[in-house]
Amino acid sequence: MTGSFRGVSAFPLTPLRDDALDEDAYGALIRRLAASGVDSITALGSTGSYAYLSREERRAAARIAVENAGGVPVFVGIGALRTSQVRTLADDAQDAGAAAVLLAPLTYQEHTPDDVFGLYADVAAGLSVPLIVYDNPRTTHFTFTDELYGRLAELPAVASIKIPGIPGGAAETAARLAAIRTHVPERVAIGVSGDATAAAGLIGGCDVWYSVIAGLLPAPALTIARSAERGDADAALAESARLSPLWALFARYGSIRVVAAIAEHWGVATRSSLPLPMRGLDDDARAEAVRVVEELGLHPAS
Amino acid sequence: MTGSFRGVSAFPLTPLRDDALDEDAYGALIRRLAASGVDSITALGSTGSYAYLSREERRAAARIAVENAGGVPVFVGIGALRTSQVRTLADDAQDAGAAAVLLAPLTYQEHTPDDVFGLYADVAAGLSVPLIVYDNPRTTHFTFTDELYGRLAELPAVASIKIPGIPGGAAETAARLAAIRTHVPERVAIGVSGDATAAAGLIGGCDVWYSVIAGLLPAPALTIARSAERGDADAALAESARLSPLWALFARYGSIRVVAAIAEHWGVATRSSLPLPMRGLDDDARAEAVRVVEELGLHPAS
Repeated sequence: MTGSFRGVSAFPLTPLRDDALDEDAYGALIRRLAASGVDSITALGSTGSYAYLSREERRAAARIAVENAGGVPVFVGIGALRTSQVRTLADDAQDAGAAAVLLAPLTYQEHTPDDVFGLYADVAAGLSVPLIVYDNPRTTHFTFTDELYGRLAELPAVASIKIPGIPGGAAETAARLAAIRTHVPERVAIGVSGDATAAAGLIGGCDVWYSVIAGLLPAPALTIARSAERGDADAALAESARLSPLWALFARYGSIRVVAAIAEHWGVATRSSLPLPMRGLDDDARAEAVRVVEELGLHPAS
Repeated sequence: MTGSFRGVSAFPLTPLRDDALDEDAYGALIRRLAASGVDSITALGSTGSYAYLSREERRAAARIAVENAGGVPVFVGIGALRTSQVRTLADDAQDAGAAAVLLAPLTYQEHTPDDVFGLYADVAAGLSVPLIVYDNPRTTHFTFTDELYGRLAELPAVASIKIPGIPGGAAETAARLAAIRTHVPERVAIGVSGDATAAAGLIGGCDVWYSVIAGLLPAPALTIARSAERGDADAALAESARLSPLWALFARYGSIRVVAAIAEHWGVATRSSLPLPMRGLDDDARAEAVRVVEELGLHPAS
């Protein structure tokens, strides 16, 4: 397992203002994360709206993230529909100082496994930083198999795989990881996503948590991760259970919309910070999200 | 029903060569279609790989299509993930001389119906040509409801809706259309896609066939459509049945890959004409596609 791919990787929003990158808000968001103690920051993940942004916006965001991260490793999402676009974005991310790049196989026409392997192989060939394979079937509609994980893990650049949340508890996670590990060597860090099941994921043996919530609320995410790291499963699960009203909102509205609504309420981002046509939460759902974070005692310094 | 939205609209490939638009091949493809007697040409549809191409490539393709269409109306696909990108592409398409624009609600984060309505409303507000709503759940993973069709049909710019292929025969199509027509007025042309069921779709009352096969093989598509138009259902269905080996290939490999393999075999496009990571058919499937078109007596002048 490579050193950077452990603990909590925080996935911040990329706030827009009047349909353009809000550079000040983004820089401030990154500085808050850098000061929070997260292990890495993943700029331009799904929560960072990478798929909607132009090359120029992504280049600017990568630069701002690295400049404001105070030495915390910054991973940068480079996904796009076409291989040549991804390669260009990879070059830009490396030029900006990314410590690693994150790549999901975006789809329009359905991919074959060979298409996806070819994408990763072509991109990996041009990289000088590690590559994180980003398996996010909700957004890509591509289904990885463990065999494909194994083929990808043979690419020397591949240092981590971000897997979807694993239903169940720590035992189910451990069983799932054992299955993956028959194809993927230990040198490749397995990172869990799906915040609601991440505590169980870390207790069950995942190396890193690719976390939406840590992008805005690093403190409770770190409580979960540090508890799991020191073997205190009860404390990790208790903190996750305490946050369950938030997980319920994520399941109902989508985590990006919930996190954006909270950020906008706190003034960390201005209203309509998501790229249209994503409208964000309506007023009722927004009020519900605000009520949940207030009842949980979460605030902008969390 | 607006005059242009009838008969056969041909969806050509947008061939690449060394990962760049093959302008000569594309111009020649458009001229063949214009001479074939199709009622319209839809440049940059799904088969035209619009989602993978840059703004510059799409602007060039729209211009080439209009310049080589000899007065046949050219519709241009303007889909992109972000509303502001779509608006820019719409302006470009109109500047190039598009007779209409075609818009699918591309997704990364899941859309709400209000997101999609907002997208169409925002884009329609800036248009001076008609808008075709492109419902393609296989590529967008968004599911339209008939109620949403109805809301969209209230936008004055919306002149047509391209619906997915309807399983079953002409009776099922007529029933489906009747259901749609309770929401969508007659002034909005309903166009069927899904080549395998298009004969039944036209006989069942669809106004236009948005056709993949017509983009490379306009003759058999026109045989089907003209038979249906003159009320000869038997002839339309017989020609569609004759082409069933081709429909089987489409179902198995995806129509874009099959059509690209045939075009490449005929030299209408050069090998690897699809944007990577789409690798196209492997050698066995390619040989199978060539055998099917040869057994059907189809050739580059079809």
